Amino acid sequence: MKQKRFEGIKAVLFDIDDTLFPSSEFASLARKNAIRAMIDAGLEASEEEAHKELDKIIEKYDPNYGNHYGLLASKFKCKDKNHVIAAGIWAYHNTKASISPYPNAAKTLIRLREKGYLLAIASEGKSIKQWDKLIRLGLDSLFHRVFVTESGKGGKNSKFYFGIAKKLGIGAENIAMVGDNPKRDIMPAKAAGMKTIRVEQGKRIAEKDDADARISKIEEILEIL
Amino acid sequence: MKQKRFEGIKAVLFDIDDTLFPSSEFASLARKNAIRAMIDAGLEASEEEAHKELDKIIEKYDPNYGNHYGLLASKFKCKDKNHVIAAGIWAYHNTKASISPYPNAAKTLIRLREKGYLLAIASEGKSIKQWDKLIRLGLDSLFHRVFVTESGKGGKNSKFYFGIAKKLGIGAENIAMVGDNPKRDIMPAKAAGMKTIRVEQGKRIAEKDDADARISKIEEILEIL
Repeated sequence: MKQKRFEGIKAVLFDIDDTLFPSSEFASLARKNAIRAMIDAGLEASEEEAHKELDKIIEKYDPNYGNHYGLLASKFKCKDKNHVIAAGIWAYHNTKASISPYPNAAKTLIRLREKGYLLAIASEGKSIKQWDKLIRLGLDSLFHRVFVTESGKGGKNSKFYFGIAKKLGIGAENIAMVGDNPKRDIMPAKAAGMKTIRVEQGKRIAEKDDADARISKIEEILEIL
Repeated sequence: MKQKRFEGIKAVLFDIDDTLFPSSEFASLARKNAIRAMIDAGLEASEEEAHKELDKIIEKYDPNYGNHYGLLASKFKCKDKNHVIAAGIWAYHNTKASISPYPNAAKTLIRLREKGYLLAIASEGKSIKQWDKLIRLGLDSLFHRVFVTESGKGGKNSKFYFGIAKKLGIGAENIAMVGDNPKRDIMPAKAAGMKTIRVEQGKRIAEKDDADARISKIEEILEIL
């Protein structure tokens, strides 16, 4: 569909997960591969049983907890528990290490730079982990600035977006935020006075928001900016 | 040269680093790649300056310390410190993730199993880290048992080798230990009553020992066993 162009935008902020790369798909595949590798290494469980336990563990513990596969191994019999844990961690990281961006993500970012926009990341999590994703995606050199807020410190709320505008020295009304998550990317950025672009990708695709524009592929940004 | 065959051997123990794969070479390459990636990400240092600092850090801190690249980044100016650290860690792990065995290692192990030997790993370090190496090398299924001693608990001393003989239920005189390290692999195994095979590979190649046999390539084991 024909998009209405934004006026006066100087900087564009991007979320990372499910905006620049299919994070949910990779996470799901990484868990499947981990379980298969653990069974191959001697975990006495079916894929279904192991998945059911892993889902419970993921629900109960923080993503940064770091011992999901240790806990999973202790729920079943194993020939050698350390072999099983190492196999799970290896398969998980191997899958996560091979992330790649959505088609045309790099090209779109380069085109935006050429058009004179300042590009920045607005992300939540651990700073080095978010940088690691950008590096693996091959996108780390394309951003002028990277802003990461830790979940414990309020996360991606409107204060975070206000802070970014202040640090960039650009009025919020001249900044566009691009993301897939209504609660973290769209609503708080809009509350801070920014223009918002919702990318309809990833696991939150059914969630509603009041974004100023809506795209289904990253390159459609070029119809708006 | 013609080797004298060992008699009565039932089990063969193997060290991992510099015995099954060129560990020292990979570690050195991983550090080089990390420094290059850090400079590319904005570390304001020459490769030489960075190497000099990294060598000091490695000498001062335990290999499991985990923040070598964080410390290195803080020794120089960086555009964005978290970018530089993430780039270093990424390049380091990327290199270390692609380890592969010495030529003919897998074939030799398979041949020894077919000949009826029980194969085990005798390694020092963190158990999951050692298993991770075996998995990445594709050798994890070839060993009947894996014994890992933590450095803090005495490491690879003769008590560790006595313990392995006891756990296997095989007399020490019927066990051969294969390794590159005189102090950790040869002397204590010999003191425990085992037969010893020194592999002349890796960074300790100039160090002396009193091993029962000496080989320069892993497949030469088949001339002894």
